[in-house]
Amino acid sequence: RLALPVFGAGMLSAVAYAPDAVVDALRRGSQQGAIPYMAVGVVSIMLLLGFAYRSNVRARPDNLGDYGTVRDLLGRRYGVVTGAALLVDYLFTVAVSVAAVTQLVAYLIPQLRPWVGLIGVGLIGVMTLVGLRVVRDRARVLLAVWFGFLLVVAVMLVYGVARHAAEASSPIAANPPTTWTIVLAYAGAIASGAVMVTGIEHLASAAPNHAEPRARRAGRTLLIAVSASAAAFLTVSLLAWSYRITGWADGPILLQTAEQVFRQPVTIWVVAVAAAAILYAAATAVFRRFSILASSLARDAYLPRQLSMTNDRLVVRGGILTVAVASAVMVVATGANVETLIHMYVVGAFAAIVLSQVAMVRHCTERLQLATEPGDRRRLARDRVLHGTAAVVAAGVWIIVAVFNFLNGAWLAIVMIIGLVALMHAINRHYAAVRGDVTLERKDRNVALPSATHGVVLVAQLHRPAMRALAYAKAARHSSLEAVGVQIEADAARELQRQWGKIDSGVPLVILDSPYRDLVRPVLDYVASIHRSSPRDVVVVYVPEYIVGRWWERFLHNKATKRLRSQLLGLDSVVVSAVPWHLESARDRRAAEEVPPPGEQLP
Amino acid sequence: RLALPVFGAGMLSAVAYAPDAVVDALRRGSQQGAIPYMAVGVVSIMLLLGFAYRSNVRARPDNLGDYGTVRDLLGRRYGVVTGAALLVDYLFTVAVSVAAVTQLVAYLIPQLRPWVGLIGVGLIGVMTLVGLRVVRDRARVLLAVWFGFLLVVAVMLVYGVARHAAEASSPIAANPPTTWTIVLAYAGAIASGAVMVTGIEHLASAAPNHAEPRARRAGRTLLIAVSASAAAFLTVSLLAWSYRITGWADGPILLQTAEQVFRQPVTIWVVAVAAAAILYAAATAVFRRFSILASSLARDAYLPRQLSMTNDRLVVRGGILTVAVASAVMVVATGANVETLIHMYVVGAFAAIVLSQVAMVRHCTERLQLATEPGDRRRLARDRVLHGTAAVVAAGVWIIVAVFNFLNGAWLAIVMIIGLVALMHAINRHYAAVRGDVTLERKDRNVALPSATHGVVLVAQLHRPAMRALAYAKAARHSSLEAVGVQIEADAARELQRQWGKIDSGVPLVILDSPYRDLVRPVLDYVASIHRSSPRDVVVVYVPEYIVGRWWERFLHNKATKRLRSQLLGLDSVVVSAVPWHLESARDRRAAEEVPPPGEQLP
Ligand SMILES: [K+]
Ligand SMILES: [K+]
Ligand SMILES: [K+]
Ligand SMILES: [K+]
Ligand SMILES: [K+]
Ligand SMILES: [K+]
Repeated sequence: RLALPVFGAGMLSAVAYAPDAVVDALRRGSQQGAIPYMAVGVVSIMLLLGFAYRSNVRARPDNLGDYGTVRDLLGRRYGVVTGAALLVDYLFTVAVSVAAVTQLVAYLIPQLRPWVGLIGVGLIGVMTLVGLRVVRDRARVLLAVWFGFLLVVAVMLVYGVARHAAEASSPIAANPPTTWTIVLAYAGAIASGAVMVTGIEHLASAAPNHAEPRARRAGRTLLIAVSASAAAFLTVSLLAWSYRITGWADGPILLQTAEQVFRQPVTIWVVAVAAAAILYAAATAVFRRFSILASSLARDAYLPRQLSMTNDRLVVRGGILTVAVASAVMVVATGANVETLIHMYVVGAFAAIVLSQVAMVRHCTERLQLATEPGDRRRLARDRVLHGTAAVVAAGVWIIVAVFNFLNGAWLAIVMIIGLVALMHAINRHYAAVRGDVTLERKDRNVALPSATHGVVLVAQLHRPAMRALAYAKAARHSSLEAVGVQIEADAARELQRQWGKIDSGVPLVILDSPYRDLVRPVLDYVASIHRSSPRDVVVVYVPEYIVGRWWERFLHNKATKRLRSQLLGLDSVVVSAVPWHLESARDRRAAEEVPPPGEQLP
Repeated sequence: RLALPVFGAGMLSAVAYAPDAVVDALRRGSQQGAIPYMAVGVVSIMLLLGFAYRSNVRARPDNLGDYGTVRDLLGRRYGVVTGAALLVDYLFTVAVSVAAVTQLVAYLIPQLRPWVGLIGVGLIGVMTLVGLRVVRDRARVLLAVWFGFLLVVAVMLVYGVARHAAEASSPIAANPPTTWTIVLAYAGAIASGAVMVTGIEHLASAAPNHAEPRARRAGRTLLIAVSASAAAFLTVSLLAWSYRITGWADGPILLQTAEQVFRQPVTIWVVAVAAAAILYAAATAVFRRFSILASSLARDAYLPRQLSMTNDRLVVRGGILTVAVASAVMVVATGANVETLIHMYVVGAFAAIVLSQVAMVRHCTERLQLATEPGDRRRLARDRVLHGTAAVVAAGVWIIVAVFNFLNGAWLAIVMIIGLVALMHAINRHYAAVRGDVTLERKDRNVALPSATHGVVLVAQLHRPAMRALAYAKAARHSSLEAVGVQIEADAARELQRQWGKIDSGVPLVILDSPYRDLVRPVLDYVASIHRSSPRDVVVVYVPEYIVGRWWERFLHNKATKRLRSQLLGLDSVVVSAVPWHLESARDRRAAEEVPPPGEQLP
């Protein structure tokens, strides 16, 4: 039951901006009288896709969503396109939701209108900070947000109908669609209104959060969420029509309608707060969804592999920051313009919906070929028609939005999808090349051991870290072992040699000349010279490394060591062995952090 | 002879802003008639310090400048203060020079006045880019710049005197200084004009660029530069006085004077270009001087040690960028206000001059105690008086500028010096603590060898990099050797175990459980458990590492490896051995970069 608010916020929150998209599209032809037909059209699409996705969930009760569906049924090629479309979808879920909140703010406090971009960025900042700290959803809070918003819309419905009956004013009259332009305007309005459906992919990935029988329960949840959202959308649209609200530019339709219905400033604030809460919930839910998808793509080698480690705090942070920065850029670039953002959003979301429905058609066809029982066959044939219809309708919505609003935002979403697909293919090719390179073949199984190992201990000065490295190197019993120093100043080199004679380590000290006062080159040349004289051997270079306990100490140590290490690793047949030396600050910190070994019980 | 333009640009260029400082200080008491007295005062200070620094150079013909002098004669405590003062001095050399150029631009093209801050930053950007690429001074170009500016001033003198004689207009009349405020205004004017001397420390470090006898030649160069600069300053100041130029706010004195003298727009542009060229030369010369000083301070452990590697391109770049950013901040923060910047500049530069002259007094005193020959004793006693006088005069200048202009900029320079001194002491304390910690004592000489070494090879998958690490580990003949894998997914772990059985390496494979899907923690715990069972042994962990050839490939590899490495190095008695695996891109790049081994001659 808790899955409903968590996963359904994306869809229900669209009530705060979808009516605006419809009204705005109709405005171009002054056809606001047609709002009821449009609303019915949008609701039909919602229900059609609702039933289609219920079938999706029943067939694949996992949390992979459309990416998994398309990848497994249509292949990785289309899977990548779906993944890219969904990444764009999620990004604009955040951007649209935040922009819608800023419009609520600007309606209530008009003085803040010039600052909507800034407010949006601030809001994303808050979401990011919360997202970085809070790991689990506050399920009860979300439940309150979800039902609170539904309740607000229900009260609006009761009040609105009562007042309308009492005052007997007439709604906007509808002109019959006489020209093709008007038909096109209607199509555009329905397609824009289809932004109501965009949360459905998230709902369809909720199965793992349900009790058994998972698939059935998740399907039921999905239908409840779709029905509730459709009812709320219908309510707001019809009230707006009844109360003759004709322009979006005057403010969010939801708040304009509430103003007409309640005519009391306090109530409008209540409506606005309820709407802002559900929009906020929708945006934050997507943050988590984004990292799940990114990790699936990373596991399939389409994104950097470390993104697959969803348990790694740094990786999760990286994902959250990516969404935050990208959506903040979008909000600022469009000036928090909800209309433009909705076009981009629909282009991303419906690309995934179309591909997922086509995939389900293929799924039904395949099952049909195997099915023998007449009941099964009938059901599969019926589902195939359902998915086929859904695919055609969704494709229609996609084409209408992409064509009508190409210059008004859609082009950017398309470019982003194409760019992401290209990037993911490049990453995948890279990993494939590496895999081909590192895969073990039969001939590699009995790898020839290096005939000998040469130990080289870097001794900049004769201090305890170097002595420790020397002791470890001696314990390793290499075929040969030398200490190596680089002569930057003749005095220092002589002093090193003198001290070395004193300690009597039994290891020869080689002083390398450095004409250019460079620490790295002479060592590289020396290791290369060992390789030339015995090409089949491995050279193990011991490098003492300071471990610091305070962040700023990093700037004071190990710069040369790091460069040496990375240059040495560029050589063949070399092992670079770091021998740590803990500075006092590091020892102190470790002592403070000390935890009992696993298995040991605290008293 | 080439040392003159390179090191003397700092002093000669001050002619472009020092007269402004004098005129501006006199303006507060409407005392512009006193300009000639002030000019004579400034020139006296220049000559006094010129002779004093000639003695500095003769005593210490090195390139360490005031820092070396004070450190060696008054001790490290005062050396650090001098170093900090000089860092501030150099910083403001760039800031003042750049601001002066922007004022020239704003005078010629008044429409650009609102953008002087931006122009300054752009100019610093150009200097930085040039400084990052060009390693050597174009000595001939600098020679032309230096003599070009002197020539321009000489022509101005001839024209100015001739025209003045012909027109017989009268200069500003001088009021006798009747009140203490006027006396103070005079003192302030001379002290501000002393910004002419600020380049002297740079000149005094030029000895190594001279032929033998270094000390004498360098001393002569210094006196030539001081005399030439003094003559140019006197020329511009007296012409300004003769032509009744009373306000700095109307534009740079140099250009206002040129306008009155030549009365032809073209000539003013010539003067402006000559002045801009010498200012640019002065600023860029300081970039290099800054990194020399920083490296001296780093060698004495007062700045991060890597700064001492002046042959390292990265380090030099870091120094250049530091100066560039800091001076750009100063230019923007003051709105390219030359007056304010000059106060800060004098505070930094004269702090070093005072300390250096006190140090030379001590030097003469010490030598005097050892000297026996009457001629030597006479000379040393005379030099002691010279340095003593110089110290007192310089201290007077410092106090007057610091007190009179405390709120108008001087406070910031003082705060910067104090902050730098504190920072350098903190860095020094850190290095001292580390040195105390790592210094070899008698008891460390016969360090106990670890009783055994345990090899642990990390095997994420059974691929060639892991096989190579395994082969190297086997060649090292550890007391015991295990391969270790972390189980993130049960299937993958089973598959790894199956493949391991096939290759028959003779090394046992340990699969570590990871309940939280974390790669690092289980390995740390495993190494810790080895240490618990045999505390005197060393654990050598072999980690295969991918070496990439293209910058963006970094984002696709080694993230987990890096984290594992840094966490492992936090343990005691551990060696982390990186075994490189070169990706194809790295192999390609290396092949492209391949150079013949040293000693091999190309045909
Ligand atoms: K699914
Ligand atoms: K939505
Ligand atoms: K969505
Ligand atoms: K010197
Ligand atoms: K100067
Ligand atoms: K200077």
